[in-house]
Amino acid sequence: MEVGYGSGEKTGFFTQGRRSLQALAVQFIVKMVDLASSIKKLGQDDPRRVIHSLKVGLAITLVSIICYHQPLYSNFDETAIWAIMTVVVVFEFSVGATLGKGLNRGLATLLAGGLSIGAHHLANLSGNIGEPILLGFFVFLQATISTFLRFFPEIKARYDYGLLIFILTFAMISVSGFRDDEILELAYRRLSTICIGGAACVIISIMIFPVWAGEDLHNLITLNIEKLGNFLEGFGDEYFNRTGDEEGNDGNKFSEGYKSSLNSKTSEGSLANFAAWEPGHGRFPFRHPWKLYLKVGTLARECAYRIEALNGYLNADFQESSEVSTVIQEACTNMSIESGKALKELALAIKTMVQPSSADSHIEKAKSAAKNMKSLLKSGIWEDIDLLKAIPGIAVGAILVDVVTCTEKIAESIHELASKAQFKSVEPPVSPENLPPEQIQSVKSAQMVNNHHVITVSESAPASPPVESSSVPKAS
Amino acid sequence: MEVGYGSGEKTGFFTQGRRSLQALAVQFIVKMVDLASSIKKLGQDDPRRVIHSLKVGLAITLVSIICYHQPLYSNFDETAIWAIMTVVVVFEFSVGATLGKGLNRGLATLLAGGLSIGAHHLANLSGNIGEPILLGFFVFLQATISTFLRFFPEIKARYDYGLLIFILTFAMISVSGFRDDEILELAYRRLSTICIGGAACVIISIMIFPVWAGEDLHNLITLNIEKLGNFLEGFGDEYFNRTGDEEGNDGNKFSEGYKSSLNSKTSEGSLANFAAWEPGHGRFPFRHPWKLYLKVGTLARECAYRIEALNGYLNADFQESSEVSTVIQEACTNMSIESGKALKELALAIKTMVQPSSADSHIEKAKSAAKNMKSLLKSGIWEDIDLLKAIPGIAVGAILVDVVTCTEKIAESIHELASKAQFKSVEPPVSPENLPPEQIQSVKSAQMVNNHHVITVSESAPASPPVESSSVPKAS
Repeated sequence: MEVGYGSGEKTGFFTQGRRSLQALAVQFIVKMVDLASSIKKLGQDDPRRVIHSLKVGLAITLVSIICYHQPLYSNFDETAIWAIMTVVVVFEFSVGATLGKGLNRGLATLLAGGLSIGAHHLANLSGNIGEPILLGFFVFLQATISTFLRFFPEIKARYDYGLLIFILTFAMISVSGFRDDEILELAYRRLSTICIGGAACVIISIMIFPVWAGEDLHNLITLNIEKLGNFLEGFGDEYFNRTGDEEGNDGNKFSEGYKSSLNSKTSEGSLANFAAWEPGHGRFPFRHPWKLYLKVGTLARECAYRIEALNGYLNADFQESSEVSTVIQEACTNMSIESGKALKELALAIKTMVQPSSADSHIEKAKSAAKNMKSLLKSGIWEDIDLLKAIPGIAVGAILVDVVTCTEKIAESIHELASKAQFKSVEPPVSPENLPPEQIQSVKSAQMVNNHHVITVSESAPASPPVESSSVPKAS
Repeated sequence: MEVGYGSGEKTGFFTQGRRSLQALAVQFIVKMVDLASSIKKLGQDDPRRVIHSLKVGLAITLVSIICYHQPLYSNFDETAIWAIMTVVVVFEFSVGATLGKGLNRGLATLLAGGLSIGAHHLANLSGNIGEPILLGFFVFLQATISTFLRFFPEIKARYDYGLLIFILTFAMISVSGFRDDEILELAYRRLSTICIGGAACVIISIMIFPVWAGEDLHNLITLNIEKLGNFLEGFGDEYFNRTGDEEGNDGNKFSEGYKSSLNSKTSEGSLANFAAWEPGHGRFPFRHPWKLYLKVGTLARECAYRIEALNGYLNADFQESSEVSTVIQEACTNMSIESGKALKELALAIKTMVQPSSADSHIEKAKSAAKNMKSLLKSGIWEDIDLLKAIPGIAVGAILVDVVTCTEKIAESIHELASKAQFKSVEPPVSPENLPPEQIQSVKSAQMVNNHHVITVSESAPASPPVESSSVPKAS
C-alpha cells in the first residue's frame, strides 16, 4: 500500500488523516497478532483447554436442541432454563469437579425440595395472615444457617455448591404461590431437567477425552518433585563453576522450575478434593489414597523452601574463596547430585507407579556425603582460611545437609503412598492374589529363582506369599 | 439418671439394650457439644461470619417477600426464580466480591441478551430447516469461545462469572421458541429481576456492617508483616537461650504465626481482585493502589521463606558450642531484633497509613549489626573453635544477614506504597497539587521554610498545618 500522494514537506489534511488511520490500523493488527499468539500459547500449553471448550459447546448445544424440540414438556422456557443452566454451571474442567458439582446439585435439590414442600404445607395450615410470616421465617432461618455452614473449611471444600443450591431451591419452592400438587409438579420438572443437564455433562465429560483431577494431581506432584531433583542435580556444578569461574555468572538462568511448587498448595488441595469424587479410572482405583499425595506435596514444598535459600546463594555476589570451594566442593556436589537423583528416582517411581526402592541407594550416598561434609568441617584444614569468605560455602553445605534430610522425609512419605496405593514392585513380579490360580505356582517358582532361596511351597495355601527372608517385596 | 436395676452380674436383655442406648445418647451428646463448640469457635474467630449469614438470610427473605406479593409481574414463578437466584449467587462475603459478581451478571445479561436477539432474528430469516441448524451453530460457537476465554488468568480473575452468565443467557434466549416481541419481554423481565436481586445484595452488603475486601487485604498484609516482626524480635533470645540452656528446648512453642504468610498468596490475590471493584470507603479512596499490596506481600513471603529456615535451626537439635554462641550472639540478636522492630514499625505504618520513616533507623541498626557480624567472622577469634559446632551459628548468622536484606526490600516497597497511596507524612507537608489554588502559595512558602530555614508564613492559609521543623503531620 502507498503512503500517500504528498510525500514531500507539504502534508495535507487528508494525508495526515490517512497516515494516522494507517498507524491505527497497524496498531490494531499488532494487537490482534498479539492476541492471536497469546490464544495460541494458551491452547498449546494445555491442548485439553481447547478440547474442554469444544466439549462444553457440544453439551450446551445438545441440551439446547433437546429442549428446542420440546419432547418432554409443554412449557419450553422452564425446561430450557434448568437444563441449560445445569450444563453451564456444572460442566467443569475435570471429571471430578463435574461429578462433584452434579451430585451436589442433584442431592441439594432433592433435599431442599422435600424440606420446602414440608415448610410450604405447614405454612398453608396457619391461615392467610400466618402463612407469609411463617414462610419468611423458614426462608430466613435456612438461608442463615446454610450460609454459616459454608464457612466451615471442610464443608466449603466439598459441599459449597450444594449448600448454594439448597438455599436457592428451598427459597424458590417454599415462597412460590403454588398449591401443593402444583409444587410437586414443579419439583418433578426441576429435578428431571437437572438430571438431563447433569447426565449430559457427566457423560460428555467422561466419554470424550476425559480430564481426571486425580491424574492431574498425580502428575503435578510428580512434576514438582522432578523439578526439585533437576535443580539439585544441576546445583553443585552451577554453584562451584560460578564461584571458581566468574564468567559463568550471567549464564545461571538454569532450572528455576522448582518455584512453581512453592505456591502449589491451593491447587493441590482442590485437585485432591475433586479426585475424591472420581470413580476408578486408568491406573487409579476408586478410593486411591489422594490425601497422601497432599502429604508428599507438603514435604516437597518444605524442600522447595530450602532450595529457594540455595538459589539465593546462586544469584548472590558472594566473595567465595577458591580454597574453600576446593575443600567442600566434592561433599556439596555429591550431596546435591545424589539427593537430586534420589528425588528424580522418586518422581519416576510415582510416575510409573512402582515401589520407590531405586531411590534408596542415592539417599544412602547423599547421607554419606553429608557425613563427609561434617567430618571435613571437623578436620584442621580450616585454620588458615578467611572465615568471612568461607561463610557462603559453609551455609550452602548446611542447607544441603538439610535438603538431604528433607529428601529422606519425602522418600518415606512416598514409600507410605506406594504401600497404601499398592504400587507395583520392581523386584520380581509378586502378588499372587491378582493372578489366576494356575499361574500362582509359576510365580512362586519365579520368586524362588530370584531370591536364590531353597524352599518348599505349601500347595495348600495358594493365596499367601511364600515366607522368605528380608528383601522380598510384599504382596500387596 | 440411674444406670438400671440389674447392676449386678445378671444383666438382662433390656438392661443391656438400655445401656447401649445410654452410651449412644452420651456419644450423641458429646458429638453435639463438639459441634456446638466448633460452631461457636467459627463465629468467634470472625464474628463477621455470623453477621454475613444474617445479612444473606435478610436479603433472601426480603426479595422472597417482594416476589410473594407479586407487585410487578403476573408470572410469579419467573420473577421469583431470577430475583432469588441473583441474591443467592451474587451475595458474597465482601462488598467487592458482591459488586463484582453483580456487575458481571448485569452486564453479561445485557450483552448476551442483545447478541442473542440478533442471532434469533438472523436464524428466523433462514426458514424452518435452517433455523435450528443456525441456532445450534451460534450456541456452539459462543459457548466454545466463552469457555476458552475463561482460561485466560486475567479474565478468570475478574470476569469468570460474567462469561458464565453470558453463555447461559445467550443459549437460553436464542434457543427459546419465542417470537421476537416475546423475547424482548423475556429479556426485560430477566434484566429487571436481576436488578432487583442485585440491588438488594449491594444495598444490604454496603449498608449493614459492610465487609470491605480492600480493608481485609490491608489488614492481612499488615498482620503478616507484623508476625514476621514478632518472630524476628523473639528469635535471637530464643535461639541463644536454647543453645545456652538446654532446658528451654521444650518451651520453644513461640510465635510461629509467620507460617500463615507462607501460603497467603492466593487469598491476597483474590482480595486484591475484589478490592478493585470497591468504591472508596473509609480511609481507602477508589483506585487505591491495591496492586502494590501484592508486591509487598510477595516480598514478605520471601522473607518468610528465610524465617522458615531460621525456625528449622530453632527446632533442630544441633550441638552448638557455647563459645560460638558468645561470640556471635550480640550481632545475631541485634540483627534479628532490629529487623524485627523495623518490620513491626513498617506494619504499624501501613496500619495507621503514615509514611514509614520510623522504621529507617531500625534498618540502619540492623545493617550495621550485619556489618559487625561480617567483621566478627574476619577476626582471628575462630581459630580455636571446632568448626562443626560452629556451623549452625554461622548459618543462622548468614540467614539473618539475608533477612536484613529482605527487610530493606520490604521497606522500599512500603515506601513506594506510601507515596502512591499518599499516606500521611510524619514529616513536613508537601504536595501542593492536592490543595486548592489559594493554598498552594502558602504551602510553597512552607516548603521554602523547610528547605532554606528562613521565612515568614502567609497568614492567609488557615487550613495548612503550622510549619515546624521535621515532625509536622502532612495534610493528607
